Amino acid sequence: MVQNVRIALDAMGGDVGPAVVVPGAELSLARHPDTEFLLFGAAGEIEPLLAQRPRMQAASRVIHTDVVVKMDDKPSQALRHGRWKSSMWLAIDAVKKGEADVAVSAGNTGALMAMAKFNLKTMPGIGRPAIAGLWPTLKGDSVVLDVGASIGADAGHLVDLAVMGSAMARVLFDLERPSVGLLNIGVEEVKGLESVREAGRILREANLPFLDYVGFIEGDSIGKGNVDVVVSEGFSGNIAIKTAEGTALQLADYLRSAMNRTWRARIGYLFARHAFQALREKMDPRKANGGVFLGLNGIVIKSHGGTDAEGFASAVDVGYDMVRYALLDKISQTLVRHARDEAEADKVRGAAS
Amino acid sequence: MVQNVRIALDAMGGDVGPAVVVPGAELSLARHPDTEFLLFGAAGEIEPLLAQRPRMQAASRVIHTDVVVKMDDKPSQALRHGRWKSSMWLAIDAVKKGEADVAVSAGNTGALMAMAKFNLKTMPGIGRPAIAGLWPTLKGDSVVLDVGASIGADAGHLVDLAVMGSAMARVLFDLERPSVGLLNIGVEEVKGLESVREAGRILREANLPFLDYVGFIEGDSIGKGNVDVVVSEGFSGNIAIKTAEGTALQLADYLRSAMNRTWRARIGYLFARHAFQALREKMDPRKANGGVFLGLNGIVIKSHGGTDAEGFASAVDVGYDMVRYALLDKISQTLVRHARDEAEADKVRGAAS
Repeated sequence: MVQNVRIALDAMGGDVGPAVVVPGAELSLARHPDTEFLLFGAAGEIEPLLAQRPRMQAASRVIHTDVVVKMDDKPSQALRHGRWKSSMWLAIDAVKKGEADVAVSAGNTGALMAMAKFNLKTMPGIGRPAIAGLWPTLKGDSVVLDVGASIGADAGHLVDLAVMGSAMARVLFDLERPSVGLLNIGVEEVKGLESVREAGRILREANLPFLDYVGFIEGDSIGKGNVDVVVSEGFSGNIAIKTAEGTALQLADYLRSAMNRTWRARIGYLFARHAFQALREKMDPRKANGGVFLGLNGIVIKSHGGTDAEGFASAVDVGYDMVRYALLDKISQTLVRHARDEAEADKVRGAAS
Repeated sequence: MVQNVRIALDAMGGDVGPAVVVPGAELSLARHPDTEFLLFGAAGEIEPLLAQRPRMQAASRVIHTDVVVKMDDKPSQALRHGRWKSSMWLAIDAVKKGEADVAVSAGNTGALMAMAKFNLKTMPGIGRPAIAGLWPTLKGDSVVLDVGASIGADAGHLVDLAVMGSAMARVLFDLERPSVGLLNIGVEEVKGLESVREAGRILREANLPFLDYVGFIEGDSIGKGNVDVVVSEGFSGNIAIKTAEGTALQLADYLRSAMNRTWRARIGYLFARHAFQALREKMDPRKANGGVFLGLNGIVIKSHGGTDAEGFASAVDVGYDMVRYALLDKISQTLVRHARDEAEADKVRGAAS
């Protein structure tokens, strides 16, 4: 019998807290009945919400704590006041202790990353963790990383990101050898960052069995979905994913006002409303909710703080998939293989010199 | 009497060359009859196109050259083969010699920047030139720079970008004190690049009379148009503007297929087609064509290489505006004022210590 997926929830995270987390988890539970939840937070707020939801209640256990990391706490503040006892810390700690397979929080990103790093530590061979996001494209989704865990990257870190991102793409998209592109700029004179070019050289020469390195990719090509994994250091990656979100909202705004401008447009809207509904679902940013922390000894998922139950459910879904399809094992295996490949390459280079 | 604006055109630049450049310039001439053109390139190709356009012909002079910088020439190749004699070089050189007020080229960006830098040199006090682009927002346009002239920036270069970008915004939007934001990421833990924070500190403390520094701006807010000028180093700036372009195209693609999915959607489209037309114009990337090279002793405008006559006309329009409203003078004045402000601030600091 396959074991249930055990998900630790920071019930107090996000702009709303339990009133989004509990119904969000319930939506995900309906899609994956083989889920159990550990809910960390104010029992007085969580339990009435569970009482209204018998199936959710049956799948849940509440662990009370009064301590909450605030959305505007600095990471250092969060660690000082929230370590050992906040709902965020306890959710991560359940993963550390093996009581849960994944932690999901809509709390503040800086605090969540600081606590996750402090408690779970980075995997052997990985210097710095990363945050991976999902990018909806014309061909489906792509994995984009790092979207803001750290700033700057040398070639070695970019190669780590490619390895971890391709493991995530194997899990999510069921691919043997996901294609990987390095985010770069196409202005010939400046030719891109030295580290990006060096990472490209390493990936091309390594010709790894578990990822297909296809070269540089520019900002305007991400949305075409030509690669499964887009690799960037965290500053540019964050700018890219946020710019895409902002542009999508801007165009939705244009479309809304265009369809309200004249009576003819409003009639047209009525005729085409199913098409608009499908379009709205396609552009729904809640569907791509769920940043995955990669490179730690445990899986942590970050939900947008301002999302609703549907959006939080997407983040829980991502957590479920990562556990069910063994993300950590796949990363470890590829890291090991990668290290072995490198060791062999070193031997070959040594023999040749 | 106001002098005509004299525009030097690299007639051979872009994927198509004269067949886009000449009709594009004609469209701009219709909007600004006080324009004269110097067209550099193959007279045998240019003159038949002018012969069909009497008004354009009357406003134009053709200077023949056989030498063309190719779209895939490296900057070093372009300089080696194209210096002194290519259509691109001669257009820039006309600005240098005072025979034209601005040069416009749809040729390759790297070569154009290399030649412009080599020939025109940077303005006193400016270390590196930048490329500024226009970003269509919910409130109009914003100036975004640097979108790819150079990679990386220390705090001083970011301050230069803020000063040059605000001068461009004064010219384009007729504002006394444009608002300026520094592109940054909002993840609290990593807190953004040191150089960005330092530039923010300098701009806040300087409280300059010709720009209103409002703080950091994230990728998802650019499209809201809350600031007139968005400042970034060239790598992230290029990623941001290209990602926005790509996302706009992706959503236009979604919209097209949604409106074709069912007969009801197609009928709806027919009713709302004027609204769709207005939307299409709003999303038209050709309208935002025209990257402005800033920080050189002369104005050079880069058009997209793959654009059509309407798009090239937008780039010529931008060149016209930059000359008519005295961009270079405004930059020089602000640079001088900025230097004087800094000198005074130094004096105050000196007196205080």
